[in-house]
Amino acid sequence: MPPAFTVMGASKKKIIIDTDPGIDDAMAILLAFESPELEVIGLTTTYGNVRTQMATYNALHLCDVGGRDDIPVAQGLETSLRGEVKNRIADFVHGNDGLGNTNPAPPKRSAIAQSAPEFLIQKCKELPGEITIVALGPLTNIAKAVEDDPTFVKNVGQIIILGGAFMVNGNVNPAAEANVFGDPEAADIVFTCGADIVVIGINITHQVYFTDKEMEEVRDSKGKYGGYLYKASKFYFDYHHSSYDIDAIYLHDPTTMVAAIDPSLFTYSTGVVRVQTDGICRGLTVFNNTTKKWAETTAWCNLPPVKVAVTVDAPAVTKLVKDRLMGLASS
Amino acid sequence: MPPAFTVMGASKKKIIIDTDPGIDDAMAILLAFESPELEVIGLTTTYGNVRTQMATYNALHLCDVGGRDDIPVAQGLETSLRGEVKNRIADFVHGNDGLGNTNPAPPKRSAIAQSAPEFLIQKCKELPGEITIVALGPLTNIAKAVEDDPTFVKNVGQIIILGGAFMVNGNVNPAAEANVFGDPEAADIVFTCGADIVVIGINITHQVYFTDKEMEEVRDSKGKYGGYLYKASKFYFDYHHSSYDIDAIYLHDPTTMVAAIDPSLFTYSTGVVRVQTDGICRGLTVFNNTTKKWAETTAWCNLPPVKVAVTVDAPAVTKLVKDRLMGLASS
Repeated sequence: MPPAFTVMGASKKKIIIDTDPGIDDAMAILLAFESPELEVIGLTTTYGNVRTQMATYNALHLCDVGGRDDIPVAQGLETSLRGEVKNRIADFVHGNDGLGNTNPAPPKRSAIAQSAPEFLIQKCKELPGEITIVALGPLTNIAKAVEDDPTFVKNVGQIIILGGAFMVNGNVNPAAEANVFGDPEAADIVFTCGADIVVIGINITHQVYFTDKEMEEVRDSKGKYGGYLYKASKFYFDYHHSSYDIDAIYLHDPTTMVAAIDPSLFTYSTGVVRVQTDGICRGLTVFNNTTKKWAETTAWCNLPPVKVAVTVDAPAVTKLVKDRLMGLASS
Repeated sequence: MPPAFTVMGASKKKIIIDTDPGIDDAMAILLAFESPELEVIGLTTTYGNVRTQMATYNALHLCDVGGRDDIPVAQGLETSLRGEVKNRIADFVHGNDGLGNTNPAPPKRSAIAQSAPEFLIQKCKELPGEITIVALGPLTNIAKAVEDDPTFVKNVGQIIILGGAFMVNGNVNPAAEANVFGDPEAADIVFTCGADIVVIGINITHQVYFTDKEMEEVRDSKGKYGGYLYKASKFYFDYHHSSYDIDAIYLHDPTTMVAAIDPSLFTYSTGVVRVQTDGICRGLTVFNNTTKKWAETTAWCNLPPVKVAVTVDAPAVTKLVKDRLMGLASS
């Protein structure tokens, strides 16, 4: 089944979504399916909201929900880059099945034989400069691709990353955001690899949310996934209510997908980002956002910069996500 | 010689200044001498802008400049709390002598026999709840007092700290501010000791500055120290010009002294501050400024909060510092 909208193939942005679905991952993936600007050429799976195997199950399931059995799904690493097995899994945010304990139907297909890093490397080699990776989980697979293929950084078009907490507190603890906390070593490798990188942190995504009323509007719309997403999001609403005392859900992953759809809804600042990998601030991102000439050589010196989103047109992003999930044509 | 202004002794805030003079320390100390709200009952010395012995020399010299041989000076630790000898000394900011290479005259007195931590402990015991410590350097002496006397935290009135970079980059490197970087272990002990603590970070002090023109006004005023401070500040201006590309100097230490003189010129947010003590972010301060209920126990849980300055009336602080250094009565 083709995407809901059709534009000239040549003008579409080819994306691979690296994902750990995850309720807001599900929203982002279905949003991508409904976005004529994007051509989803693959999903790769990681851990975080669920373990990697369940992420693969859910990614395949979401392709079924979207009628997109043309999209290959490649399974990623089950451990962190350095081999940690016991990663933090946010089942208290997304439910035991990652989709709000909705018991998602078994997928009709299996993952491809290639691993996620192999798939990323091969696709970027085939279409150098043309692939955008939208990274919605810990950066293990992408760091592995950087480590395994010296041409990967040159070949990848852009990497849009949901990760980090820039000049704000984290969401795992006051220092660290969940995706970077999930694999700090991998994040530090990716942030400093020299690729064209856009980073969307929770300083941005905590500005973009659906209220419960908006989620009901999506449910009651002509959107194909309204009922499905409403049901899955109940667990996610409960988490936000108990943890943040709000009747709303943050749209972390959909907001990051919007950065692929319409980058003009954000402003960016350019600088080097490093990740603290040990101690109480493990997983903390520090963005050098100064023009100061340091007296000493710092750990941020002589490294390639990334683009960090610093402002967002939150109402416009919310509207875009909502309109598309409600089956309304983009204005 | 008495202070320039006289108010009822009972209403004065008794302060001990823990200091590593330092050009802006000199401004802050002389500002304190000119402030009727404050009674300076002692200076204790630390390292940072200069080594501790030179800080003692300069503190005694500044008492001579102010005609205040009634104020005891107690020398502090020459190493960090954990015994590090080779601390970072900011001679490139303050000159080899700490006072802009102005070759300060030898002091007429010596330091008292008591060490800085001993003096702090004793004074707070003598006048429980009445002493405010204004801490302008690394927090080694104060952490030592916390460690050595279990009643110190209860006895000290308030500790006003110049330190940390809250939701902004540091000034030693993108992560760390100089005073906290000078002794991160000491800072973590002090921030979490449970005393009444006010923290003024560079998020605040980078908003308060003298332009070169304002410094000239101070020089040409009837203020007793105008010519002296103008001369000392030349080196400090040069540093700011080369490092920040500005024709101005940040008033870090004087701004912190103003928080003792008139706390109403700042607003504060309350929460737990922890310090990262290793890795590339050694010296970074993380302030839990959220109301989020964390799913896991974090390193910020179950610890006493501090008050972190979040806004400053910068023109009012600048005017207060300038008026006093120009010998104008406070309005």
